[in-house]
Amino acid sequence: MSGADNLHGYYLEDLEVGMTAAFAKTVTEADIVMFAGVSGDTNPVHLNADFAAGTMFKERIAHGMLSASFLSTVFGTKLPGPGAIYMHQSLNFKAPVHIGDTVNASVTLREINGKRATFDCICEVGETVVLDGEATLMVSKRPS
Amino acid sequence: MSGADNLHGYYLEDLEVGMTAAFAKTVTEADIVMFAGVSGDTNPVHLNADFAAGTMFKERIAHGMLSASFLSTVFGTKLPGPGAIYMHQSLNFKAPVHIGDTVNASVTLREINGKRATFDCICEVGETVVLDGEATLMVSKRPS
Amino acid sequence: MSGADNLHGYYLEDLEVGMTAAFAKTVTEADIVMFAGVSGDTNPVHLNADFAAGTMFKERIAHGMLSASFLSTVFGTKLPGPGAIYMHQSLNFKAPVHIGDTVNASVTLREINGKRATFDCICEVGETVVLDGEATLMVSKRPS
Amino acid sequence: MSGADNLHGYYLEDLEVGMTAAFAKTVTEADIVMFAGVSGDTNPVHLNADFAAGTMFKERIAHGMLSASFLSTVFGTKLPGPGAIYMHQSLNFKAPVHIGDTVNASVTLREINGKRATFDCICEVGETVVLDGEATLMVSKRPS
Repeated sequence: MSGADNLHGYYLEDLEVGMTAAFAKTVTEADIVMFAGVSGDTNPVHLNADFAAGTMFKERIAHGMLSASFLSTVFGTKLPGPGAIYMHQSLNFKAPVHIGDTVNASVTLREINGKRATFDCICEVGETVVLDGEATLMVSKRPS
Repeated sequence: MSGADNLHGYYLEDLEVGMTAAFAKTVTEADIVMFAGVSGDTNPVHLNADFAAGTMFKERIAHGMLSASFLSTVFGTKLPGPGAIYMHQSLNFKAPVHIGDTVNASVTLREINGKRATFDCICEVGETVVLDGEATLMVSKRPS
Repeated sequence: MSGADNLHGYYLEDLEVGMTAAFAKTVTEADIVMFAGVSGDTNPVHLNADFAAGTMFKERIAHGMLSASFLSTVFGTKLPGPGAIYMHQSLNFKAPVHIGDTVNASVTLREINGKRATFDCICEVGETVVLDGEATLMVSKRPS
Repeated sequence: MSGADNLHGYYLEDLEVGMTAAFAKTVTEADIVMFAGVSGDTNPVHLNADFAAGTMFKERIAHGMLSASFLSTVFGTKLPGPGAIYMHQSLNFKAPVHIGDTVNASVTLREINGKRATFDCICEVGETVVLDGEATLMVSKRPS
């Protein structure tokens, strides 16, 4: 088995509706600073405590795409894992994420159509849903 | 005018269907390393040149969510700009982004329903569409 | 219109004495760590809480050049924006910036001489001026 | 001697006109990405290879304030070193710095007035002066 093979995730034959996986991370100031740097999104609601205090959020919030990226982390590292191709993602931003919040991103396999696997996606902070949506990935068959 | 006021973006009254804005950035190895660090998405297709060489992409590709985050940058810094609330984003990943590619993310205001503004979104590398989708943001009225 | 054109900032014909723009950011520990890394400025007054406690500042302070860089952000992204050439900047460091302070960097166009635009520059934390100075940028005419 | 004492730089009595010190660093893509993140300066001339190709610089250039920060590194870590207070810096941006260029920042003590030490400052890439200016720092007397 080559190095590439032993890094590969699930193949189509390995998947079953109902499978689930998660990734969770505490969002720090450093994450927000670095996400702003990489994305270029310097919106003051993320970086400026004075500005944020005047908004409905009252304090700085994380970029919604940072929480969304945790879903990509689940797909890219756990289920289906390396080798799957990201086709589609929908994202409904439901509630803000503040510095110090731990975001739990989880996905559940809902349906398999041919090589396309569709997942229900949710990001939660404690009991609060901060983000939900669905994703479709293309998963290849096990090489024979 | 307070500091917060002069950082605010467009208000609802300022928006017109057809308005457009863009952000573009050359994706570097450093961006991919930092995005992996912040997101936790250590999928080898992004970080491992040997693994990537064995995939259909032939070389490391950027995280799809990195290109998606450039759309967030347009919304958060240009149109509608600071003060708008991100409600929904759909993302169709169409083609890979390689190291050195310049991704041009642009959004066009398609429809205004009450306080909700819906945008057509596209990310391109040269003539190639790498990502498209639509987004909805809530935009507040100018304070009287 | 090419991608480069729609990213360009103000042209000379667009400028008027008195125009102003601002960028503000809360300075975090992560900013100081990263600024130290990129600049190489590992002065213990920025990185070493024990050393800083023995100075007149009593606690770690941000690099003066970090606040100065926020002026560059205003010039490079807002006024005059992309396309202008930075010629000169003077900086008078007036007061320290501590972790958690929100620095508001603003510039006001004072004079236009030929293609050279001179700006008054100020960085404030609340009511305190932490930095002031002036800057000159070269701004090109709108292509005909 | 406390930890703080053995980290202190030169005291006023240690300084002599003509003293010189330098810091040099190769500017990488990663430095530019991180400087953009910390400063918020996402000017496309720094981050967007396509935009930069259409400017007089022909390719992406480093932030001028990044080279300027190397002067701060000399002052904060070498001459006068920790304990000195940065009062003033003037910066004349003379030529662009490209990715891969090694910037050599050097300072020479020109004059001492009371506790104020004034330095001539220069940043060079090979034989090309990319930045010059002068700086004033307040240097305290050796505690008796």
